[in-house]
Amino acid sequence: MGRLSFTEYFHLLLTGDEPTEDQRFFLDLLLVSLAEHGMMPSNVAARMTLAADPGSLQGAVAAGILGAGPVVLGTSEECARLLERGGEPAEIVGRYREAGEKVPGFGHPVHKPVDPRAERILELADQHGVSGLNVELARALHAELGLVMNVAMPIAAVLLDLGFPSAAVKAVPILARTASLLAHLAEEREEPIGFDLAAAAEDAVEYEPDART
Amino acid sequence: MGRLSFTEYFHLLLTGDEPTEDQRFFLDLLLVSLAEHGMMPSNVAARMTLAADPGSLQGAVAAGILGAGPVVLGTSEECARLLERGGEPAEIVGRYREAGEKVPGFGHPVHKPVDPRAERILELADQHGVSGLNVELARALHAELGLVMNVAMPIAAVLLDLGFPSAAVKAVPILARTASLLAHLAEEREEPIGFDLAAAAEDAVEYEPDART
Amino acid sequence: MGRLSFTEYFHLLLTGDEPTEDQRFFLDLLLVSLAEHGMMPSNVAARMTLAADPGSLQGAVAAGILGAGPVVLGTSEECARLLERGGEPAEIVGRYREAGEKVPGFGHPVHKPVDPRAERILELADQHGVSGLNVELARALHAELGLVMNVAMPIAAVLLDLGFPSAAVKAVPILARTASLLAHLAEEREEPIGFDLAAAAEDAVEYEPDART
Amino acid sequence: MGRLSFTEYFHLLLTGDEPTEDQRFFLDLLLVSLAEHGMMPSNVAARMTLAADPGSLQGAVAAGILGAGPVVLGTSEECARLLERGGEPAEIVGRYREAGEKVPGFGHPVHKPVDPRAERILELADQHGVSGLNVELARALHAELGLVMNVAMPIAAVLLDLGFPSAAVKAVPILARTASLLAHLAEEREEPIGFDLAAAAEDAVEYEPDART
Repeated sequence: MGRLSFTEYFHLLLTGDEPTEDQRFFLDLLLVSLAEHGMMPSNVAARMTLAADPGSLQGAVAAGILGAGPVVLGTSEECARLLERGGEPAEIVGRYREAGEKVPGFGHPVHKPVDPRAERILELADQHGVSGLNVELARALHAELGLVMNVAMPIAAVLLDLGFPSAAVKAVPILARTASLLAHLAEEREEPIGFDLAAAAEDAVEYEPDART
Repeated sequence: MGRLSFTEYFHLLLTGDEPTEDQRFFLDLLLVSLAEHGMMPSNVAARMTLAADPGSLQGAVAAGILGAGPVVLGTSEECARLLERGGEPAEIVGRYREAGEKVPGFGHPVHKPVDPRAERILELADQHGVSGLNVELARALHAELGLVMNVAMPIAAVLLDLGFPSAAVKAVPILARTASLLAHLAEEREEPIGFDLAAAAEDAVEYEPDART
Repeated sequence: MGRLSFTEYFHLLLTGDEPTEDQRFFLDLLLVSLAEHGMMPSNVAARMTLAADPGSLQGAVAAGILGAGPVVLGTSEECARLLERGGEPAEIVGRYREAGEKVPGFGHPVHKPVDPRAERILELADQHGVSGLNVELARALHAELGLVMNVAMPIAAVLLDLGFPSAAVKAVPILARTASLLAHLAEEREEPIGFDLAAAAEDAVEYEPDART
Repeated sequence: MGRLSFTEYFHLLLTGDEPTEDQRFFLDLLLVSLAEHGMMPSNVAARMTLAADPGSLQGAVAAGILGAGPVVLGTSEECARLLERGGEPAEIVGRYREAGEKVPGFGHPVHKPVDPRAERILELADQHGVSGLNVELARALHAELGLVMNVAMPIAAVLLDLGFPSAAVKAVPILARTASLLAHLAEEREEPIGFDLAAAAEDAVEYEPDART
């Protein structure tokens, strides 16, 4: 108690080992870069939930985490599985195209033309000498596809190159998202806007359920 | 299988007994009147959650139910406990005022000046001859307070007068809410608006997290 | 208010139409047959959650619904999609085998050698004259595979033959499960066993996290 | 990116300020000491939920967090409010006794005779010179009551003495719990025991729902 940082302890819990300095650095880096403080759909849902049940902070956090699905959070885990399976870039892309699916980790899901975080994570991996086969494959897929690389892909590539098990990759964005949710909810408790958010959403759509009953 | 309706079976599960005709009638009535099909905060949150994770219908339902807290859903259970404890109206009101709390079931929580459903439920209870001591106390409190009666109060009063255990009163609005959520989510799957709702909510507030990091 | 039963209203919310007598009969039948009152994993999880936070009934319900995943609840929705897509039984089975996947709706997921509810639902569909192309295909797949038919398959087949949209098929087991959860949780509030269940589970495994920190 | 540790960033998100060295030290310390890796009810519920829906890690995490209620997780937030309100120990204790309630933070909720973590946190607060009025009041209440001090009380006292807002106190155990859940669930994915846990729980109780229907 008092010896390990929370990040180090999280690494220990997830992998069974205390992290090396590089593992610690990147785990901190990824957790910070994923704990966005903007107003995102899952934060909106969590604030509405807290407004409806102010006594249950854990209920509001749970509602927010349920919104941490693949569309919003990215697909770091699918990326990890793709990288682990490996193969030639052209062949990998062909496999997805044949199945009529998009390659995970490319083409940012929410509006943005570029994801500067993705590029920055890869640069830092190079600088720290941790880029290995997985970062290499991520870049080769990028070249092959010519699409924006989603932050989910470098997260997966760097964690795998650092020896993280693929089954634990998704734990990183979920823990980060939880920190972000908790900050939003602490703010919501002091200055509630949850019902205003809901009202704005309700007003935005002309929702006309058929007059019934 | 095939003998009992779902409402009758729900009564059996909750209380151990098949319902009488009056119990069946009011359980159906309350479930229907609480399964609102409008766009409410918990439906908004559920739709956003489904948009973020389209494969997990149960996750979206869970997020919506988490928003079925006392502020949105009413306080049928607190009303049931108030009624069970009993007492003189003036004394009951005095007790809450002394503790600096509002009397549950009065003063509608969301915007509306009157709740026509509350009045209608009490009328039907009179017509069916099921109004008893609890409906009487609900009305006496209404007279004492001079505030709008929230639908939560007649729900509690009628269920108690029909012999429902107070520990099961809140089950009724939650089951009703679940039906409503499931209908919204089936619609969301065919015509998704969850992200539009979230975007409208995000735009509605000028949310400026301090520039950090 | 007072005219429609909850089941009829649920049909109206989900489909936009009041049900015919056959639609009402089978919706009641399926909801009742799926609202099992036994002690299942999701009821166990919900009871533990209520024990940990007795004030949040909706939190416990949400936890239970989150456990209503495909493994426990069956795969009525996948079955509906399989049936909607249609095709020759041998060809359908071949398609799944080629992809290395099992055909949804066959081979009961939890322990049981047969599922008498599945057979009974199909018989009643025949008796009521509602069995159509989807029930026929379900039976042909059964003959082709020679495996136990899971209750999820007749649920999907009968609902589709009755004109239910496939996007709404999964709503039926989730509403049924919610009723079952609410009954367990009302019982838990009167006679708590949630912590005993957790203790039994904890004792059952020799869980030895490495001594760390 | 890369400058702040996750703990430092979490402090920034929650409070608006980067932490001092003492704030960082204690935030790490509390997060680590609360991220228990044992098999607790909420980990059991989360594992069962993942077993039922292996594709939804966020659903399983949400189910686990819903079990992070006051009984299991302690009552750090109520402790913070008690301390903030202040007063003389005898008077505070009298106030709770009069209301027929137990004083939060004393009398460990789960079976254990002592909570060594509570004592250790207070010692470290003394060593670092951060113990202030809140730690003092926690100790005075301990002396007044003669009951075991729950770890929730020193968490609240130390965070308040370090300038943490009381609305954010509960965020700390929830983030810690999420880390613990994620580690359990990563393990569950590699070596599933969720259904065994559920089966053990089911076997442990002689649950006999009345034969019905």
